[in-house]
Amino acid sequence: MTNPMDQPEYGIVWVTAPRRTEAEAIAEALVESGLAACVSLTPIHSIYTWRGEINKEEEWQLTIKTDLRQFARLESTVKSLHSYEVPEIIAVPIIAGHTPYLNWISESVVRD
Amino acid sequence: MTNPMDQPEYGIVWVTAPRRTEAEAIAEALVESGLAACVSLTPIHSIYTWRGEINKEEEWQLTIKTDLRQFARLESTVKSLHSYEVPEIIAVPIIAGHTPYLNWISESVVRD
Amino acid sequence: MTNPMDQPEYGIVWVTAPRRTEAEAIAEALVESGLAACVSLTPIHSIYTWRGEINKEEEWQLTIKTDLRQFARLESTVKSLHSYEVPEIIAVPIIAGHTPYLNWISESVVRD
Repeated sequence: MTNPMDQPEYGIVWVTAPRRTEAEAIAEALVESGLAACVSLTPIHSIYTWRGEINKEEEWQLTIKTDLRQFARLESTVKSLHSYEVPEIIAVPIIAGHTPYLNWISESVVRD
Repeated sequence: MTNPMDQPEYGIVWVTAPRRTEAEAIAEALVESGLAACVSLTPIHSIYTWRGEINKEEEWQLTIKTDLRQFARLESTVKSLHSYEVPEIIAVPIIAGHTPYLNWISESVVRD
Repeated sequence: MTNPMDQPEYGIVWVTAPRRTEAEAIAEALVESGLAACVSLTPIHSIYTWRGEINKEEEWQLTIKTDLRQFARLESTVKSLHSYEVPEIIAVPIIAGHTPYLNWISESVVRD
């Protein structure tokens, strides 16, 4: 993230949550507080190791479209509402987009 | 997108559409016209603000594998078939891949 | 991938597989061998061209969270377990994340 702070840094953030209700609560909090323009939810089956054991869980994935200049605040909001000790919160860069949609992200997300 | 025009710029483009029929029509148009190598469809639950109100919708997400040098034409085709005023069309870069698969994207996508 | 080899290169790798059993076998092999920290599975509908014909298939998508310095070994493991001649294996960069989660990826993924 080397852009100057006056340019949007459009990105997608993925978060996983254990239940649909928790996923929806996080999604609504992010959209209502202007930390995301849009969040979509999908059920997923997860496979991972935790303390040396293979685990399989049914979870929900949040796909969050936002301006990554607000990543720290988004991360903090997710952490405060999430029931996991170590929630997955990861971001990838948007390098091209439909300009009116990118503008809509900018207008929907708060600025400092 | 700073690559010279003679090198592929592999990427994933995400589009959301309100109905499966519309999502399929867009997917088929992109694949038939050589603007995408492969499109996958998934049902999603979306949460966003529009004119100050929280909205929740059932939608379909298109995950499009392509050469981003054709992004402008892909964007134009999606826009022409899409029922939204401001459709979501966003792209992220592929930075590594199975070479035969990347070559297949190159062969499937048209060149100028 | 220009990072020095002593810094993690966090990324998401997407793979598609024809059946849930095959997708699960690949996911478990990657997690058990320390080539991925976490894999999630989702059913998808795919549309693509193959030898000039439009094809539609029901498939499973694997979303793999890993350190991309192990991409070559991950690719080789997927290829060895996958029934397709040309499997989709593509990676995008993680440019921001919740530090404890990124650390967990580092601890879960093997080093050379």
